[in-house]
Amino acid sequence: MEVDEVVCLPRLSRVAVCGGTHGNELSGVYLVRELLKVKKGVMEKEEEQEEEEPLSVLKVLSNPRAMQQCRRYVDTDLNRCFTHATLNGLTSGTVPYEMIRSRELNAMLGPKGRSGAVDLVCDLHNTTANMGLCLIAYSDCDWICLHIFRHLQYSPFTLYIHFEVSNKESYSLDSVGKHGFAMEIGPQPHGVARSTVYTAMKAGVQHMLDWVCFFNSGTLFEGESVDVFTMIKHIDYPRDSETRNITAAVHPHLQDRDFCPLHPEDPLFQTFSGETLRYKGNEPLYPFFINECAYYEKGIALSLARKRRVNSQLTTPAILFRIC
Amino acid sequence: MEVDEVVCLPRLSRVAVCGGTHGNELSGVYLVRELLKVKKGVMEKEEEQEEEEPLSVLKVLSNPRAMQQCRRYVDTDLNRCFTHATLNGLTSGTVPYEMIRSRELNAMLGPKGRSGAVDLVCDLHNTTANMGLCLIAYSDCDWICLHIFRHLQYSPFTLYIHFEVSNKESYSLDSVGKHGFAMEIGPQPHGVARSTVYTAMKAGVQHMLDWVCFFNSGTLFEGESVDVFTMIKHIDYPRDSETRNITAAVHPHLQDRDFCPLHPEDPLFQTFSGETLRYKGNEPLYPFFINECAYYEKGIALSLARKRRVNSQLTTPAILFRIC
Repeated sequence: MEVDEVVCLPRLSRVAVCGGTHGNELSGVYLVRELLKVKKGVMEKEEEQEEEEPLSVLKVLSNPRAMQQCRRYVDTDLNRCFTHATLNGLTSGTVPYEMIRSRELNAMLGPKGRSGAVDLVCDLHNTTANMGLCLIAYSDCDWICLHIFRHLQYSPFTLYIHFEVSNKESYSLDSVGKHGFAMEIGPQPHGVARSTVYTAMKAGVQHMLDWVCFFNSGTLFEGESVDVFTMIKHIDYPRDSETRNITAAVHPHLQDRDFCPLHPEDPLFQTFSGETLRYKGNEPLYPFFINECAYYEKGIALSLARKRRVNSQLTTPAILFRIC
Repeated sequence: MEVDEVVCLPRLSRVAVCGGTHGNELSGVYLVRELLKVKKGVMEKEEEQEEEEPLSVLKVLSNPRAMQQCRRYVDTDLNRCFTHATLNGLTSGTVPYEMIRSRELNAMLGPKGRSGAVDLVCDLHNTTANMGLCLIAYSDCDWICLHIFRHLQYSPFTLYIHFEVSNKESYSLDSVGKHGFAMEIGPQPHGVARSTVYTAMKAGVQHMLDWVCFFNSGTLFEGESVDVFTMIKHIDYPRDSETRNITAAVHPHLQDRDFCPLHPEDPLFQTFSGETLRYKGNEPLYPFFINECAYYEKGIALSLARKRRVNSQLTTPAILFRIC
């Protein structure tokens, strides 16, 4: 075995499972409430059997006011508040509730980018798009996240595993931890809990924690390649030039086909008068977040990604060790 | 032909098609906006060919403020404001926006119960429940509504036609017209427009207006029996006795099975800890509005109905005439 095939990383002592970052995405709200009832339950069992320092799992309800109103947010989108500028900038006048809350969460789980931060943040989300169980992260060279993704990919409970990479500064709650990702599950209407979606999320969280326990107990994980989807661009709905009202819906041939290739000239929208509008790009890309409810206000009908296989030599360790 | 087999009714001169009564139910919002663009379009064509007094179709966006915020309502549920008490009572202090708007709509389309009211109100709604195209009315002896229901039932564009009867005073916008019903289509998340749902609603409205034109032109409609669902009771989610938070979701075996019979001991809920709770009623009933988003706050997980076939001799006319 070559030395450069082995990566050694410290154990993951503190993991945060967060729900209700968007107050109307109910699977995470109900799952975290359920986990809070079980002080020392199934989730931590594996670790206890090892009789090591127990894994600390923080269960966090991120946006209680928005949850109470069953809305995405009260003043501003909490999951866009975790940039260094927002967390550390000066405030004056009336401060939006979510900006105050983001600083509380940063104090609880961070500080972002510092040694005191929790080791891993798993932030639970729902989408109205047909994305199955999808993991979203900001880096394609975070080996902890990559190995968790691979572990979930082979789980019988999950439908899809996907991985979004961006070069922008991360603004989401999961960026507060040393490692972090969003677990996004759909389709589910916001403000509704569907039992199958709840069960898939519960299984996803359980498998994630299982992997952490395996890792902490010294298990070796061999490297393999991972398919990732890198966001290329957003596409807005067609809109009336005067009123800015939308004039078309996602075409029935595209609706619910998240992560299936969209080719040039494929149907993209159907106008409310019945006309088909087609995709005018030059290359096939992979649509996701198709017709997500919360993105109407952000001017996003769908996002388009390029798919690529991350080469294991470059980005995933052949063997992942933890330092005891 | 016996005299008592014939019913004569006046022509329907003024029909109102209303969308956005709930501001986040987008099919009706976009359909009415589209109809407003077409001053004298396809919808009125049949009538014009007859060279009679043209049918007047009023297109109404019921709750513009809620639409603008993409919320069900701003202060209170507009579609509960059309009782005589609310429309005509004294007001003092801060009056909820929807109470003011209900009076404006009553002035525009009513007054409710008076001769100046429009002949027919068709109010467009969406639901997150899998109810297909469902018509909801408050009476099982309104022959105009019954014949429209039957006409839509045989249309290739619709999935289901159902009919809810209640003995309470009607509180909904459609009760302002001489005849009226809600056209409810799902499943669709609130705040989202799905193209297939929009198209089904557009076809439903077109067929409704076609029927009105046939009726106005003197077409005879023979009577037949109609299946109706009469609401018996609502069932709330299981809740924590202290916090009142819900502790279970609709069971996967029941989810999406609106208008399919629910038998005693069938699965009803699955708790967030995984336990199955069963239906403890004494008779099979028909669930509808299963897991409707807007009814979480009303304490309704689903409603249960009894199905019955309305005897044509009792309630539907053998032949329906209009008075010229």
